Amino acid sequence: MGLVFTYDYQVPFYETTVNQEIKLPHLLSLCLQISGLQSLDLGVSDDYIFKTYNLIWVVTDYEIDIKRLPSYAENIRIETEAISYNKLFTYRDFRIFSEEGDLLLTIRTTFVLMDYTTRKVSPILDELVAAYQPEKAKKMQRAPKYQVLENLDLRAFQARFSDLDMNGHVNNSKYLEWILDDFEHDFLKAHSLTGLHIKFIKEIAPASQVGLRSQLSEDLVSRHDILVDGNLHAQAQVKWQQR
Amino acid sequence: MGLVFTYDYQVPFYETTVNQEIKLPHLLSLCLQISGLQSLDLGVSDDYIFKTYNLIWVVTDYEIDIKRLPSYAENIRIETEAISYNKLFTYRDFRIFSEEGDLLLTIRTTFVLMDYTTRKVSPILDELVAAYQPEKAKKMQRAPKYQVLENLDLRAFQARFSDLDMNGHVNNSKYLEWILDDFEHDFLKAHSLTGLHIKFIKEIAPASQVGLRSQLSEDLVSRHDILVDGNLHAQAQVKWQQR
Repeated sequence: MGLVFTYDYQVPFYETTVNQEIKLPHLLSLCLQISGLQSLDLGVSDDYIFKTYNLIWVVTDYEIDIKRLPSYAENIRIETEAISYNKLFTYRDFRIFSEEGDLLLTIRTTFVLMDYTTRKVSPILDELVAAYQPEKAKKMQRAPKYQVLENLDLRAFQARFSDLDMNGHVNNSKYLEWILDDFEHDFLKAHSLTGLHIKFIKEIAPASQVGLRSQLSEDLVSRHDILVDGNLHAQAQVKWQQR
Repeated sequence: MGLVFTYDYQVPFYETTVNQEIKLPHLLSLCLQISGLQSLDLGVSDDYIFKTYNLIWVVTDYEIDIKRLPSYAENIRIETEAISYNKLFTYRDFRIFSEEGDLLLTIRTTFVLMDYTTRKVSPILDELVAAYQPEKAKKMQRAPKYQVLENLDLRAFQARFSDLDMNGHVNNSKYLEWILDDFEHDFLKAHSLTGLHIKFIKEIAPASQVGLRSQLSEDLVSRHDILVDGNLHAQAQVKWQQR
């Protein structure tokens, strides 16, 4: 098992929905920030690996289990741990606890290293992950495969400047924001998220024309495809329950 | 002069633009969060005045002067002070400093108290502001008046669920996000903001159809109207300079 890094946080007003819960896209961003703090702490900061190797860490998958989302002004503890890695992927968990120590949600994240200039995936370098003390595994974990949604209208929109981050592409928390905003307000008020899997297939460049299609099944599972120029850039599956 | 409250902050990755500067809408949200912390510290928290008086603080104006926006990973200090109040308005300043103590930007904010149920402005109660030790003034400060932009096409879009906050309306930082996203990416990369005035005239309800029209003059001042159902809900003036 890897070294554990913890961070205490109070949910601020401006990152809370009308349901008085933390915005999940914000929580994902915050988690990445915290893994960045661990990297800094261990001498392998994002800045260092960018300047030394021209590489950046990019998320390819989030798998999230939610018992309860933290509420406005709630004090939470976020724990993160680099679990294992193989030739191409690293796997990192985030666990979020209430003040009383109850586990509220877990986020399993898959990362790759990408060359900043060529935008190609790079093999994982032992020297870049050793400090986190993860397990070295030969096997790759297979993400679930989803059928492409067909015969559905695309909602089209342009990726906005505010959707971009310093890596020069759409920030991965924004995909989730787009997906959530594809539902009616009444649905989002009446339902809560219990699970989510999102996989990022290709990055989205500035000013891209994005297409999103969504389908909700009777058992409250929704499926989402995100496309640019007819190519799949991300897919997601979300589990809901009535409040 | 009022009591000064300070807060130290490091600019996180996920709140940084492709220009490696803090996202201004985020900085405004953070400032409000910090004034909320001062209120909590002084025993007049947002939660207390909501539960006791059914009132919420609402921003009506931001006036911002920018020498330089803080950059990614920069350590900044945010100072806030409730300057003065009168029958209907309170005025609060935020000053943002670099680690070396240089003043980077100032934000002058005007607040009103609004009844949560009736959505009407309430007179300022002395007992709710005394703790901040602001000056009591008779005069109201007049915000600049802007001509309505005419003969311009409206960009229409729906207020999204993620634009809302716990007060049940569009969060005021989102207006600024909409305005910035109305520019071409190339313009936003090649120019920086030096000043901004935005006034909020009416709140925007969930799922509203919003119209935005923008005009940029040759001396790099842009003007923006935000409308719902043909009524003006906000106006802004932004000063730009070439990078």
